[in-house]
Amino acid sequence: MSELRKDPVTGRWVIISTERRKRPTDFLLEPVHIRPDPSCPFCEGHEQMTPCELLAHRKNGTAPNSPGWSLRVIPNQYPVLRVEGTLDRQAEGLFDKMNGIGAHEVVIESPRHTDTLADVGDVAVEDVLWACRERIQDLKQDRRFRFVIIFKNHGSAAGASLAHSCSQLIALPIVPREVRDEVDGARLHYQSKERCVFCDILRQETTDGKRLIAENGDMVAVAPYAPRFPFETWILPRRHQSLFEDAPRHEYASLARLLGDILRRMNKALDFPPYNLLIHSAPFSEQVGEYYHWHVEIIPKLTKVAGFEWATGFYLNPTSPEEAAEVLRNVKM
Amino acid sequence: MSELRKDPVTGRWVIISTERRKRPTDFLLEPVHIRPDPSCPFCEGHEQMTPCELLAHRKNGTAPNSPGWSLRVIPNQYPVLRVEGTLDRQAEGLFDKMNGIGAHEVVIESPRHTDTLADVGDVAVEDVLWACRERIQDLKQDRRFRFVIIFKNHGSAAGASLAHSCSQLIALPIVPREVRDEVDGARLHYQSKERCVFCDILRQETTDGKRLIAENGDMVAVAPYAPRFPFETWILPRRHQSLFEDAPRHEYASLARLLGDILRRMNKALDFPPYNLLIHSAPFSEQVGEYYHWHVEIIPKLTKVAGFEWATGFYLNPTSPEEAAEVLRNVKM
Repeated sequence: MSELRKDPVTGRWVIISTERRKRPTDFLLEPVHIRPDPSCPFCEGHEQMTPCELLAHRKNGTAPNSPGWSLRVIPNQYPVLRVEGTLDRQAEGLFDKMNGIGAHEVVIESPRHTDTLADVGDVAVEDVLWACRERIQDLKQDRRFRFVIIFKNHGSAAGASLAHSCSQLIALPIVPREVRDEVDGARLHYQSKERCVFCDILRQETTDGKRLIAENGDMVAVAPYAPRFPFETWILPRRHQSLFEDAPRHEYASLARLLGDILRRMNKALDFPPYNLLIHSAPFSEQVGEYYHWHVEIIPKLTKVAGFEWATGFYLNPTSPEEAAEVLRNVKM
Repeated sequence: MSELRKDPVTGRWVIISTERRKRPTDFLLEPVHIRPDPSCPFCEGHEQMTPCELLAHRKNGTAPNSPGWSLRVIPNQYPVLRVEGTLDRQAEGLFDKMNGIGAHEVVIESPRHTDTLADVGDVAVEDVLWACRERIQDLKQDRRFRFVIIFKNHGSAAGASLAHSCSQLIALPIVPREVRDEVDGARLHYQSKERCVFCDILRQETTDGKRLIAENGDMVAVAPYAPRFPFETWILPRRHQSLFEDAPRHEYASLARLLGDILRRMNKALDFPPYNLLIHSAPFSEQVGEYYHWHVEIIPKLTKVAGFEWATGFYLNPTSPEEAAEVLRNVKM
């Protein structure tokens, strides 16, 4: 029989549908294999095709916006929000609006076109995480911003417009809804129990083991109890900490190792799936340190459509997290 | 400059992105044209291929589950939830779950395979709405159910697995999140202003006219102020009423006329788009009559992917509702 399950953080219910049960081979798989593209603006040697870099990891002696880098951060050429201007909050009768002020940056994760986060190696992944940290630390100086979303779209089915491996940062003057719901849910849990709900999840999942996928000294990867999507995976730091950007260096190294491991497991089990990766961290200037716990969410895109889910907020998931965790745990690496 | 806009009901912010502005011809259009399919289980003459009908509009003298009908309601052959059993609510350590109890029904909207809701005629659309009403009235007798979702997926890009025109009803033991958020938001508005927020929207939009698409004596179609998706359209009854299933017959007739009109406008302006249609009505057994206002949402599927939107709850919409309303308002019918 199908089950209705409640996410302990947000209170969101999902249906784990056994009637429509799907195993890895049942999905409409669209493997992501990156082909060379001589016109890619993100490749080494094409630095003049992008806006000027904000940050780069470069060989000594190389000039900005020239070859010789292993990672570059640039402003997005087509930003969804712009840095220049004032928020100019105002009403329009009943309605509320503000100007589209923010920042939109791109982390180019490798100079080589066909590299992916699964195969660049642990040090390169750690460098990406560290670059995100540096950019957040910089962006949060701007008092107009309340949150920085960090996300990655891998494969066109997951929304990537360019094939070259990159992540994006969007600094926002508001807190996006999923993070708001998590923060509010975590506060309720804390008010009732004086404990962080994510720490409670970690304790139960590492003891129980049914939904555990992999772990190391600092980080734990689990299939969440009430996943919206098949093979949805969360990586949580064992140590309670609300801000991604305040983690110590060794936690980025541990996260990089576990993230690469999970992506390679997904590649083997799910045939190089498109995916979205998100970092959820506490909003700036909110006192949520005691109950919010930063984490990473990885969502392979395996089901073709979800118009109904979008529109109702009601998720049907054809794969139980216990089955997904077992598949990913048992991948021969 | 882009704008951040807040939905006055749910409080959800969206970005109306002028930098990535899209007009109707800029979308990846996937026109839905239905081809004949001799093996379709929903066609007249194939009644034996479906579960037994729960309700049908038939010519006098025809037997159930035989030809001679204009509309049939059947249980879904692959239900996401089942009627038999008990909810058996229980904890699993920190987590909460219940059995997948519910009902999942299909309204087959025409005996002819290639008919669509845009071209079956006002009476046939009204019959579909009336059949939904009858099924909700029946399902709400079951005290285990808190809500019935009514939705339609038109075209495979919008999640339709069969091409034959149909709507679906899912009776749920919980209230889905989007409806919960609307009810909670409407309550807050009422507590502060003693008015229904949807009535306030209707008043502003019919006076202002910028986002008005079409209207008749009972119903108004508008592009919402903070739409998640390009060309998202809401149809609201002018008269305040919380429950779709309690509307008087003439309101179904008016809704049928306006709904057919909007779908034909979308077909002309957006080249027969795939779409999702949803009916939002008040949860059963909640005293929300003073501030909740039932309505219909139509969401054409024009953008290819939205993994990021799913995952963050943060919507980027490349078409302003003022532009969408102008395009749909000016379609020559």
